[in-house]
Amino acid sequence: MDPQAMPDGRRRVVIEAVSPQVDGGRFAVKRCTDDRVVVEADAFCDGHDRIACRLRWCREADQAWHEAPMTALANDRWRGEFAVDAPGAWRYTVVAWVDHFLSWRAELSRRVEAEDIIVALRHGAELVAAAARRAGAADRARLAEFAAALQTETDADRGKRLGLDALLEQLAARYPDRSLATTYATELPLWVDRPRARHGAWYELFPRSCVDANAQHGSLAACMARLDYVAAMGFDVVYLPPIHPIGFTKRKGPNNTLRAGPDDPGSPWAIGAPAGGHKALHPDLGNLQDFRKLAARARELGMELALDFALQCSPDHPYVREHPEWFRHRPDGSIQYAENPPKKYQDIYPIDFETPAWRELWAELKSIVDFWVGEGIAIFRVDNPHTKAFPFWEWMIAEVRREHPDVLFLAEAFTRPKVMQRLAKLGFSQSYTYFSWRNTKQELSDYLTELSKSEAREYLRPNLWPNTPDILTEYLQFGGRPGFIIRLVLAATLGATYGIYGPAFELQESEPRDPGGEEYLDSEKYVVRHWQLDRADSLKDLLARVNRIRRDNPALQQDWNLEFYPSDNEHILCYGKYTGDHAEMVVVVVNLDPHHAQSGWVRLPVERYGLDDARPYQMHDLLSGSRYLWHGARNFVSLDPRASPAHIFRLRRRVRSERDFDYFM
Amino acid sequence: MDPQAMPDGRRRVVIEAVSPQVDGGRFAVKRCTDDRVVVEADAFCDGHDRIACRLRWCREADQAWHEAPMTALANDRWRGEFAVDAPGAWRYTVVAWVDHFLSWRAELSRRVEAEDIIVALRHGAELVAAAARRAGAADRARLAEFAAALQTETDADRGKRLGLDALLEQLAARYPDRSLATTYATELPLWVDRPRARHGAWYELFPRSCVDANAQHGSLAACMARLDYVAAMGFDVVYLPPIHPIGFTKRKGPNNTLRAGPDDPGSPWAIGAPAGGHKALHPDLGNLQDFRKLAARARELGMELALDFALQCSPDHPYVREHPEWFRHRPDGSIQYAENPPKKYQDIYPIDFETPAWRELWAELKSIVDFWVGEGIAIFRVDNPHTKAFPFWEWMIAEVRREHPDVLFLAEAFTRPKVMQRLAKLGFSQSYTYFSWRNTKQELSDYLTELSKSEAREYLRPNLWPNTPDILTEYLQFGGRPGFIIRLVLAATLGATYGIYGPAFELQESEPRDPGGEEYLDSEKYVVRHWQLDRADSLKDLLARVNRIRRDNPALQQDWNLEFYPSDNEHILCYGKYTGDHAEMVVVVVNLDPHHAQSGWVRLPVERYGLDDARPYQMHDLLSGSRYLWHGARNFVSLDPRASPAHIFRLRRRVRSERDFDYFM
Repeated sequence: MDPQAMPDGRRRVVIEAVSPQVDGGRFAVKRCTDDRVVVEADAFCDGHDRIACRLRWCREADQAWHEAPMTALANDRWRGEFAVDAPGAWRYTVVAWVDHFLSWRAELSRRVEAEDIIVALRHGAELVAAAARRAGAADRARLAEFAAALQTETDADRGKRLGLDALLEQLAARYPDRSLATTYATELPLWVDRPRARHGAWYELFPRSCVDANAQHGSLAACMARLDYVAAMGFDVVYLPPIHPIGFTKRKGPNNTLRAGPDDPGSPWAIGAPAGGHKALHPDLGNLQDFRKLAARARELGMELALDFALQCSPDHPYVREHPEWFRHRPDGSIQYAENPPKKYQDIYPIDFETPAWRELWAELKSIVDFWVGEGIAIFRVDNPHTKAFPFWEWMIAEVRREHPDVLFLAEAFTRPKVMQRLAKLGFSQSYTYFSWRNTKQELSDYLTELSKSEAREYLRPNLWPNTPDILTEYLQFGGRPGFIIRLVLAATLGATYGIYGPAFELQESEPRDPGGEEYLDSEKYVVRHWQLDRADSLKDLLARVNRIRRDNPALQQDWNLEFYPSDNEHILCYGKYTGDHAEMVVVVVNLDPHHAQSGWVRLPVERYGLDDARPYQMHDLLSGSRYLWHGARNFVSLDPRASPAHIFRLRRRVRSERDFDYFM
Repeated sequence: MDPQAMPDGRRRVVIEAVSPQVDGGRFAVKRCTDDRVVVEADAFCDGHDRIACRLRWCREADQAWHEAPMTALANDRWRGEFAVDAPGAWRYTVVAWVDHFLSWRAELSRRVEAEDIIVALRHGAELVAAAARRAGAADRARLAEFAAALQTETDADRGKRLGLDALLEQLAARYPDRSLATTYATELPLWVDRPRARHGAWYELFPRSCVDANAQHGSLAACMARLDYVAAMGFDVVYLPPIHPIGFTKRKGPNNTLRAGPDDPGSPWAIGAPAGGHKALHPDLGNLQDFRKLAARARELGMELALDFALQCSPDHPYVREHPEWFRHRPDGSIQYAENPPKKYQDIYPIDFETPAWRELWAELKSIVDFWVGEGIAIFRVDNPHTKAFPFWEWMIAEVRREHPDVLFLAEAFTRPKVMQRLAKLGFSQSYTYFSWRNTKQELSDYLTELSKSEAREYLRPNLWPNTPDILTEYLQFGGRPGFIIRLVLAATLGATYGIYGPAFELQESEPRDPGGEEYLDSEKYVVRHWQLDRADSLKDLLARVNRIRRDNPALQQDWNLEFYPSDNEHILCYGKYTGDHAEMVVVVVNLDPHHAQSGWVRLPVERYGLDDARPYQMHDLLSGSRYLWHGARNFVSLDPRASPAHIFRLRRRVRSERDFDYFM
């Protein structure tokens, strides 16, 4: 290319490797409104000149750019940060330039010969005069004075002091010459959520099992009372499986049998019947008025409802009749039911995302979410998003959140890692994880380290579930009551967001339908269950205590702050979470063996807390209320699962005086 | 966005993380014409469908795309490769699509019920008929026959066999439906060099020290004879420091003193005098005819000349008079000489890359390279490129190589890592490294592992120098003759490309100008040196032997194949390089201590070579000619630096029979 055709070849500063970023800015980094966004970049120029580097950011909606200086770290790396005060789309980038005043000042400080200094002062005078011309009215005169003084000074020592004057540096820094500044090639997208995207305790329940005495089928009205029960345990989100009309054709019977009896309610995921589809309520559950009352009651209790968004249709769904072109047809003209040969799911028709009518399809599917958003719902748990086309999710989530940036989507995709990551990149606010099947010390520490430290954390937020209506793990089948407690403590303290499927969880439902399988016997997916909530062995009080601990300790409301600590027993997992300023630390010790007492030595990074090796300190177990006297880094723990399989300790720094501080509780 | 406005939301395949790539395709990956380019990508779609994935590549000049299938690895990763047969700019990308025929076939193979199979056959008939419509004339009829058979078959078993027919699969794979294919968003740039970019032995010499008997100043004519001397040592590239007229104003005297006597020749890097600038020859060296003869002689000897490209001017350079606007001026109107306070370099004016006349400047600087390329020069060693504006290099290198893709540039930037990497990204073919100062086992293995295994290897090719006219390392100052041998063996076997500054190297010049400094006493940079090439202690025969070993062993002509092996003595460094097929292996053992004999056990990965632990094998030291009988993985070595501080072993696999193979030499 002829240089004549080039815009400007004099932009000498290079900006590279700005972090965080996802796929070169193709996808947004995720943060919450209570986060500070820390940005780093490599920035440098040729030669020995000094550069200045600034972070730029804006809300996409108003495009008004803010700026803050970045600070040089080692090795040409710079860092800056900014706060995000509203959910929605933001952008950030970095700008840097050769700062000739700073370069001049740095050289002046090293000059020794009087003659050189005098020449340098005259050069400085030019630079400062130019800054004065760029200056605002408030500073212009002052800069001009400095310029004049530099121009006329004849004493080298006095001149050097003048040139290095701190006020001059301050004033000049306000009016740099940015005509040849480099701006990083990409404005990196950032999506900001409300804090619920990062932390919260979820409770999944089937409304149809919220049954008034002797009723056959539960109702939203009866569900109102159940909300009090859930709120008492301290949950934040109540997630309801589909509440829509359920198909009759090929309806499944108890335990997923192929023939349903006349009173069998069918699977809530076989959505659609003459009574309506995804925007309708199951007639037995109630009407929209009932739903609004339920949602309002949840809000009163400090909780919010999450709905299921399951994109499939029973053969009786109105879409099947009205839009046969949205489904794949078999050569005989019938609609292709879901299958994964040799398995068949005749009660469900998958949607064909390759339909030529995809535009109309997308618009209609989005309108389902819009409908429920209109009813005040702002969390959707999306069923099997990995079996629907990726472009749809990216478009739908972006469109919904353009108007409603507070809406959250949880991806229920138990599938291959890269597929799960792609869904998260496309916009899902949270993701189910493999946590349910990570049991050993090595498995748990490897996997949680990956979730909390790898680059994927910029866009994938984990939501940890010990159980779901589809997942009754082997660990829970065989671990007994201690097994449930262990998995609860792990989920609730390893993850800022976790959830349980109840009341199956607190009532320790553990019978599988088939040996070696993960389906529940008499799964609530196919029948109405009458739960005995007041059973003496219920874990509801423990749940309440754990959720209280989560609310009281901000360290547990974050994921990235997780650290694992050594223990010399393979069954004892020890880890901690700290608040950003290390003012508070939660240390968890779990015996992963639900059958036997285990003991051993754990090692904490007490040096980071300035703890004195010689003096004991008190560890307060928030779970049991017990207090222990510990010494130094290495301490002995012993956990009998029949008593309690875990400690949740709090360690808080208390400054006694400037030079002496200690810890309490 | 309204889906009506979207191009097509049905492209279900995702392609991510294509490797190699540099900064998301902003810069080119580098390969040589004898390389195969291996490309990997993550590719997957939603659901359970099968995908097909292909690698696409083309030369930028002709834009004719080639394609080859990619193979599925684990975890949604795919791999393909292609050969590059000409230097220049290439591009590659990845395309993938949901393959409905493959998906159908995979499902058919799992179907068991006759009824399902028959329905599936009809669906298959539709897919195959569609393939027949896309097919070339040669295959159309055959596919149509298959379609007809699938349409009419009524026996499930026979039908299943028909659907799974290997020929059908083969034919259908030729005509996939790519209408909804996804192409990776970026066409990734690839720069292909001739193999000299990757491997070669360089020899730096000052032509002015090529002196006829009793002459004061060498000439290119006298340099002709020196070429025979260099060729006899087996070097590939002869690099000449600047051969242009040298300025008189502020000329430096011997040992960089400020006042030159009338006969002092000055620094060749103080370019420009009344006799001309960068396109002229120093009058004492000869004229352009002499230069052409020299270049031709080098080619006759199987070598090529590399010139220095040093962008600075002596005060007497014609540019200073003709283009004062290309230099920075001091407030008093004089031109600013080079300085890094308190140091001053009054014999050199740096070029001001922020000049408003940068376009004319760039064109002129490029014309220097064009001029010498016109004289047959295709390698430039660029002096301090990190003190010139980055955009200039990117433009200049690209422009020169657009017409002359065989031209190579070596960056002499001994500076911060990210600056060196940036220059390499901008297009420099090779880079000087920190090798000169890496001495210990840990330093060498860490640094060479970084160079040969980190992502930077995609664009940064190292050129290892034990010494240069600016760098007489402490190790060479104090290591004696063994020190020189050690550094030579390391450079020549760790690096596919290495170089020495001679005859200072082979004559073991080791006196520094100042204690603690790295400048040579009586540095050739400021004086003409009369080297005694036939001194008995010269390392020239050793150099010849080492370069012969490099030429005979392709494993030493690559960088990425380097592996370090354990040794139990901190002074013994052991490493190997193998050819791609593991047919040949070179194992080097170096005693890093130039003063004392060292011995210890080294461990080779013999299992990779199928060596039998029980049977001895012969190790042939190519350096000394000695042969050793080794057993298994662990063997004892003892190296006395007074005899030889290193072994260079060759280990070659010889297949005796299909099931029995052994090694020789």
